[in-house]
Amino acid sequence: MTRIQQLQQEINTLISQQKFEGNPPALYAPIAYIMDQGGKRLRPLLTLLACDLFEGNIQDALYPALAVEVFHNFTLVHDDIMDKAPLRRGKETVYKKWNADIAILSGDTMFAMAYQYTLKTKTKLVPAILEVFSKAAIEVCEGQQMDMDFEQDDSVKIDDYLNMIRLKTAVLLGASLEIGAVVAQADSKQVKAIYDFGIALGMAFQLKDDLLDVYGKQEDFGKMSGGDIAANKKTYLILKALELADVSVKERLKWLYNPQNNVDESSKISEVKAIFEQLNVQQEVSKVMEAYYQQSISILNALEANQARKEELAAFANYLYNRNY
Amino acid sequence: MTRIQQLQQEINTLISQQKFEGNPPALYAPIAYIMDQGGKRLRPLLTLLACDLFEGNIQDALYPALAVEVFHNFTLVHDDIMDKAPLRRGKETVYKKWNADIAILSGDTMFAMAYQYTLKTKTKLVPAILEVFSKAAIEVCEGQQMDMDFEQDDSVKIDDYLNMIRLKTAVLLGASLEIGAVVAQADSKQVKAIYDFGIALGMAFQLKDDLLDVYGKQEDFGKMSGGDIAANKKTYLILKALELADVSVKERLKWLYNPQNNVDESSKISEVKAIFEQLNVQQEVSKVMEAYYQQSISILNALEANQARKEELAAFANYLYNRNY
Repeated sequence: MTRIQQLQQEINTLISQQKFEGNPPALYAPIAYIMDQGGKRLRPLLTLLACDLFEGNIQDALYPALAVEVFHNFTLVHDDIMDKAPLRRGKETVYKKWNADIAILSGDTMFAMAYQYTLKTKTKLVPAILEVFSKAAIEVCEGQQMDMDFEQDDSVKIDDYLNMIRLKTAVLLGASLEIGAVVAQADSKQVKAIYDFGIALGMAFQLKDDLLDVYGKQEDFGKMSGGDIAANKKTYLILKALELADVSVKERLKWLYNPQNNVDESSKISEVKAIFEQLNVQQEVSKVMEAYYQQSISILNALEANQARKEELAAFANYLYNRNY
Repeated sequence: MTRIQQLQQEINTLISQQKFEGNPPALYAPIAYIMDQGGKRLRPLLTLLACDLFEGNIQDALYPALAVEVFHNFTLVHDDIMDKAPLRRGKETVYKKWNADIAILSGDTMFAMAYQYTLKTKTKLVPAILEVFSKAAIEVCEGQQMDMDFEQDDSVKIDDYLNMIRLKTAVLLGASLEIGAVVAQADSKQVKAIYDFGIALGMAFQLKDDLLDVYGKQEDFGKMSGGDIAANKKTYLILKALELADVSVKERLKWLYNPQNNVDESSKISEVKAIFEQLNVQQEVSKVMEAYYQQSISILNALEANQARKEELAAFANYLYNRNY
């Protein structure tokens, strides 16, 4: 078993030991439902990998790692309400399976549970961990609000988009790693560097997500293929297409993305994909994603830490970069 | 200036110093809107009063007190979505003024901010404070879910209702006091007692709220008069009425409270109020409220603490008991 597999097993064991049960059942059933679905468990693994990198005690990082995972799942529960997303990990979303009220409240409960889990760690570093955690939590909300604002805003530029995904996605990857480094009592320069590694990796990760939303297979990815196009999401792909398109194609894209025109969903997705193809958008986005990925690897290489463990983290970054789900 | 007024001023000053601003504005404007509305600021005052009671350092209790107030306002923002409440403190609710998505996300942000505020206290007792806080947060969610479940449940009994309001309302009053006692490093027996005082006071407080919803003046109370009746809320009043009514009146009440019958709102409120009158419901509920209030005063009297400060807390409990808003 590799070190990554060992750490993954530690997390999976801890999660499977949690009883997401309680009274009233209507509040807890959705929590068990989403937590038992699995998912990549990427963020808690990053916490443990960062703790390991700086030779910290993995046992002290386990509950903070679980907290990050529960928090992440809470954000999915609430985001799916706002995005009216029908599917998540190939299953009905909480708000679809139950209703929006239950999704709001189960999510709130998960947020409080995330803090409770952090408090279970034996280290005295709880306040420092919670500083990182709370700051990230607020930034994730800021990112999600920007994402919603962008749906009604035709002046969004690629830089706005990059700032939005930094907040909505990359910050939590950075914070997951930072928390592991804090538990390991790494010095502040290294803590900063591992956070920056997470930000660059998170940017690549989100761009990959945008690509998979359009080009991934629904059975692998677990979400509706072309869902971002259907929902008029301002992703890197559409913003790049608008940048590259000539006047007539640009107007056509704007018309297709105008919810008032009630375009049939599947013909809209096909037509937008054809325009992306024509403009080489997939390749353009892949290039930017590659640059962020390379940036993350450079930061990691420059880090002062155990070489073998750096390589583990690099291997994990590479796995994320090459994933198809 | 009395001690209570001094402490009130400390809280109001701290709240007014906070800038509830940030980017994106759509996320922060609702936070500023609800936090600047005022409200009774009851919970943070309880935190300071409990800290004072056990001769703790008020400065160390201020940020945890602010955290409790921000948390409480967060729960209002989310509850108003679920309850479809149009008015709060005489103003449009956040979800009405903006929309449900913004109310969800601004609320989430406030929840994270509440934790951030707690982390600002200088005491080393942050983990102990957050234990109390997180447990209460989860129980408040449980209570709110029960409240929603009750709307579709015709088998709800008065004991179920009392358990629901204990979780939804009383626990946070108890926790507000407990946090003050923890900051003051009161011994565990006294911490338990002040929590129990808060629970009994909270029960009386919620029963008062139920009464004011029907018998209060809208201009004092700031919510729609009879709103609980309109929304088919299972309050102590209706449950007591169902207990006291004969078969025909009971059937009539059930018919009026069945949303499928689409009864005109204002005639429904008048008819239900007339039935309450006939059954002496107001007096019955007042009796139970009085008993909880007396229980809280007994617990307070038995507490081992500075007599003058116990009297301040008793005066405040009395003020809550006699309020008309």
